[in-house]
Formats: sequence, structure tokens, C-alpha cells
Amino acid sequence: MTDADRLRPLLEGVPVVDDTVRRAALDRHALLAKPAGALGRLEELGARLAAVAGVVPPPVPERPAVVVFAADHGVHVEGVSPWPQAVTALMVRTFVDGGAAVNALAGVLGATVAVVDVGVAERTLLPDGVEDRRVAGVTANLRVSPAMSRADAVASVLVGAEMAASTIAAGADLLVGGEMGIGNTTAAAAVIAACTGADAEAVTGRGTGIDDETLARKVDVVRDALRRSGPPTDPLAILAELGGHEIGALAGFYLGAAAARVPVVVDGVIALAAACIAAGLAPASVGAMVAGHRSTEPAAALALDHLCLAPVLDLGMRLGEGSGALLAVPVIRAAAAVLGRMATLADVVGPPHD
Amino acid sequence: MTDADRLRPLLEGVPVVDDTVRRAALDRHALLAKPAGALGRLEELGARLAAVAGVVPPPVPERPAVVVFAADHGVHVEGVSPWPQAVTALMVRTFVDGGAAVNALAGVLGATVAVVDVGVAERTLLPDGVEDRRVAGVTANLRVSPAMSRADAVASVLVGAEMAASTIAAGADLLVGGEMGIGNTTAAAAVIAACTGADAEAVTGRGTGIDDETLARKVDVVRDALRRSGPPTDPLAILAELGGHEIGALAGFYLGAAAARVPVVVDGVIALAAACIAAGLAPASVGAMVAGHRSTEPAAALALDHLCLAPVLDLGMRLGEGSGALLAVPVIRAAAAVLGRMATLADVVGPPHD
Repeated sequence: MTDADRLRPLLEGVPVVDDTVRRAALDRHALLAKPAGALGRLEELGARLAAVAGVVPPPVPERPAVVVFAADHGVHVEGVSPWPQAVTALMVRTFVDGGAAVNALAGVLGATVAVVDVGVAERTLLPDGVEDRRVAGVTANLRVSPAMSRADAVASVLVGAEMAASTIAAGADLLVGGEMGIGNTTAAAAVIAACTGADAEAVTGRGTGIDDETLARKVDVVRDALRRSGPPTDPLAILAELGGHEIGALAGFYLGAAAARVPVVVDGVIALAAACIAAGLAPASVGAMVAGHRSTEPAAALALDHLCLAPVLDLGMRLGEGSGALLAVPVIRAAAAVLGRMATLADVVGPPHD
Repeated sequence: MTDADRLRPLLEGVPVVDDTVRRAALDRHALLAKPAGALGRLEELGARLAAVAGVVPPPVPERPAVVVFAADHGVHVEGVSPWPQAVTALMVRTFVDGGAAVNALAGVLGATVAVVDVGVAERTLLPDGVEDRRVAGVTANLRVSPAMSRADAVASVLVGAEMAASTIAAGADLLVGGEMGIGNTTAAAAVIAACTGADAEAVTGRGTGIDDETLARKVDVVRDALRRSGPPTDPLAILAELGGHEIGALAGFYLGAAAARVPVVVDGVIALAAACIAAGLAPASVGAMVAGHRSTEPAAALALDHLCLAPVLDLGMRLGEGSGALLAVPVIRAAAAVLGRMATLADVVGPPHD
């Protein structure tokens, strides 16, 4: 079976988003007990949820679930991050212990958090409670070689899709994808450059907060990687050449959510790189995506434009873990609730009369 | 007792916000298990909550409460709104019945909604379940005379403060002020013009969505009102000349929240007009305010700048009812939760060693 064959059932399962339903939702909004358009972007968001679900009003999500995919990156040897690689495993431990930002947010927002190892370097540091879905160890250094084989790129996408399916089967009705991986803003920048045609300077940011010298090195690494990998061909090639296992898994997670007609919230720059891959593999999958927030990483804005996604929040966040996406969950629930639970203007003022 | 005497205990009860606590909260953020600053504006928001509460970490609000103040406006006779005045009472009925946007949002966000009549025109249409705290009927037409007496302005502020106190006494730990009143964007625009020095064209917007002709008339009304009332003197005079009973009540609501050291979320343009009055009466009260969202009404941006408040959300909303403020509640809860519940970096990587 070819690599493309292995992905075909997933990609063919992504339904075209029904614009009739979207318009019916907007028509309903025009009848509700408020001035037309007064709920602003909440109205378009509700229509988006209706289109994903295929019904007006859309169900109000009650069981949001975060899945955090963790992996390390061969490009770490280039000195693109001040953090040692072990921090990936240590943060995974923190996710399991409940002490990370994503846990604090999930606590107040009523979401579950699951953690999946798709290629963490320091395996011995990992706690129990992490789902082992490793693809092929740590990626290679994308500056000098493809990050992974095409077969492993497919495997990482399939892991993410399976996690979406199993999370939905367990009852989740709104998915949030998160990630952890020291060095992964470098891979994300390279992927977004390849998907959007932007150059290395435009996509490369400070990640966790690197200094000028490290930033200059990081730009060189991204530029070299783009030169080495050549003009982008298909999305799977971009993922294999420049991506990471968590980026592939997140792409699959979005595709799996779209296939199940469950909305999925996209987080910051790494998540957006994955969303660009998913969009390349199955453009209709973007219909199931909601951009949770506008990360401060420069590549995030490029990816949002590329995907035609307007983020719900703009709070200057750049943490990853799914944190910014998770914070958008109440707005998404609210957008569904107003469509389903508000009275109409006719209910309020009575039937028209002469 | 003079009018100023009647307000003095409330205003003197507003504590100065403790900048030491705010800085201690930011110091704590720098120790948490994340890159410095990676939670963006959530960090500053958490510090603000800490300063209001006077403690780091601040408590995570668990019982948000919306209080909607409803009143009608004499300026309605000028044709500044396409809606009949009875819509104020009919929407109050909808709030009580649970069919308005604020109810749908409160349902998903776990907030209570109370409704207070501070001067609705069509009293006979009001349902049971509305708290009667009427000040003095409907305001006068602010184009041609003061909207209310100075004594009534004080009375409206005291009603709001009492509602804040009783809502907090009943267990609420995060307040959201909402309003309903056909014609009240005209009053709000005039109040904000007087507070900020902006002119009638700059503050006057389309409110519920008026046409060009109505907008031109509305600008004339605001300009005439500002000319009639003369250069602004004190905040109470601005409220009496140009305001409304729900604007006064909201101002008192913010002052009452600040006096009790409970954070309060400010909604759109009418709420912001009230916040400007509260800030004029007791500048320290701004420390307890969180701007929930950026309304599309032009005066909202002027008021936010005047108050040095950065809104949490920017979703193009312009509904009132407290809807935009309510939608910011989960972000506020999240900002408190990350400060209190995240592990430190030292917890994650162990103590420093040589």
C-alpha cells in the first residue's frame, strides 16, 4: 500500500462543509431577539458550528477535550532554543501532574486533558498516564536532512486521527489540540513558510523568548531548511521534510475531527502549521476548525490568513499546550447557545399586525 | 444632607488599588512553569485581580452574577432609535423569561441574571421577578433639559451600589453589569463626550443599527445636548445633565464592587459611560474594573482609552445586556487560576545546581 493509500480513507471521510446550513444559521440569527448583527463575530462562529454539525441550531458543546501531542526535534542541535531537550519530557510530566497552564485552564473550563507521546527524547523521564503512540523516535535535523520519512509522516497523521476518533468515541464533543516540543517553533515556521510561500525572516519568531543572536541563528536554520528541501510539492512532503511528529499528529487530529463532524479548536503557531498541512491534505477540513487565538509568533498570522481563519481571542499568548485554543472554548459554546436558546423578536414583540 | 454628602460613604469606601500586590503577582508569574510572558495579557489580568483582592494568588471567581439595569430615556422623542419605547419593557420580560442573549450566555457560563427596573416607561408590561428600584420615572429629554436632577443622579448611583452590595452578600464573587434602555446609546455618547472632551461626531454611533438619516439626527441631538449643558463640571453634573438612570446605577454598581474589593466586568458603550462617571467620582474604582470587550460603538474606544482599560475580547459585539462583559468571565477566571494553580519552573526542573 502506498503512503497516499494509507491516508485515503481519512481524507475521503472529511465532508464538504454545507454552506446551506451556514446560511440557514445566519438567517436564524436575523430573527432572534436583538438588533441584526449585534452579536458580531459570535453570529458567524455559530453559523460555522451549525455547518460542521449539519444542523441549525448546532449542539452546545458540553464535553471539551484537550489532547496534547509531545515530541522532540532533531533541529534542537542547532541551538534554536535555550531550553534543554529534557524540558519536553518534564513538561509532559507536569501535564500529567496537573501543574501546567493547560491544566489550570482546563480546570476552570471543564475540559479533560490527555497527553500523547509521539516522539519525546527523554523517555525515561516520562510518567505513567502518557499514551505511547511513538512514531519513530526523535525527528532528524531538518536543516540538513528530511525531518522524517514520508511513511513516518503518514504514520504521525494517522496517530492524530485515531486520537481524535477515540476521544470523540469517549464522549468529547469539542476537541482542542495542544503540543509540547522544545524546538518546535523552528519546525512550525519552516512548515508555514513552505505552505504560504513566505520567507525565513517573515516566519521565524522568538518562540519561548530567545535573544537576538539565537533568533538570527534560527532564521539561518529555517532558510537553510527551505533551500535544502526545495520548492514545496505536496503537504505530506512538507511535513516529512520540515515538520515534526506532533505537527503531523495535530494535522491528523484536525482531519479526524472534521471527518467526525466535531469542531476542533486550533491553537498557536505549531498548531497552525499542522492546520496548514491538514488543509493541504483535505481543504474541507478547515470548515471544522476554529482558530482559538492569535499567537504573537509571526508565522501564526501568515497561517491564519492562509487558512482564512479569524481568531477568537487576541491576548498576546504564545505558550502552546493548547492553552490559547482552550481559552476560546467558552466563546464557542456561547456561539452555539445563542443560536439555540434565544427567543425570536416575534416571540418578544408579538406577531406583526396592521 | 447635600447630594455630595449622600455619596461620600460610598466613595470613601473605595480602596486604593495596591500596586505592591500587583507587582508581586507579576513576580510570581515569572516563576511559573512557562516561558516568561508567554501567557500574554492573561498575566496582567491576573495581577489586576490580585491587586483588587489584595492577595497573590487571587481567588478564582466561582459565582459570577449579572445585574441588568433597565430604564427609558426622554430623548427617545427625538427619533434617535427606530425601536418603540415599549421594547425596553418587552426585553426586560425576555430577560426574566430566559430568552435573551444574556440568558443564553449566562447558561453556558454558569452565571446568575437579575433584572432591576430603574425607570422603565411601560411599567404595565413588566413581569414579576423584576426588582423595583425606580428612581424617578423616565428621564427628561437631554436635548432640551437636564436628563434628571442632581438628587436623582445620586439616587441612581446609590441604587447601583446597593445592588452590588446585596449581590455580593448573596455570594457573588465576580460582578457583571448589564443594561437595557431604548435610546441609551444617545445618552452614553453624550456622557462620554463630556467626560473625554470628544465632539458629537466622534462619539455618536449607529447603536442598534440606525440609518444615515437617523444617525445625522442623533449627532445633532448629542451636539445640542453638549451645547446646552455647557462645559462639563463634575461627574455628577454630567450624569444629571446627559445620563440615564441605568447609567447612574451602573456607575454605582462599579463603585460598590470596588468598595467590596470584588472585580466587576464592564460591558459596552453604555456601561463604559457609567464607568467614566464612576472613575470621575472615585478614580481608584477603575482598579476593580475589567473591560470585557471592545464594542463597535465609536464612543466605546474613546472611553476605554480614557479609563486606560484594554478590553479582553474584540468580537464586534454591540448588544448590551452585559453580553460582551459576560463572555469575558471565563478568561478572567482563567487568569486567576493560572496564578494559583500552576507549578513553578523550579517544581518542574528541580532545584538549580552547579
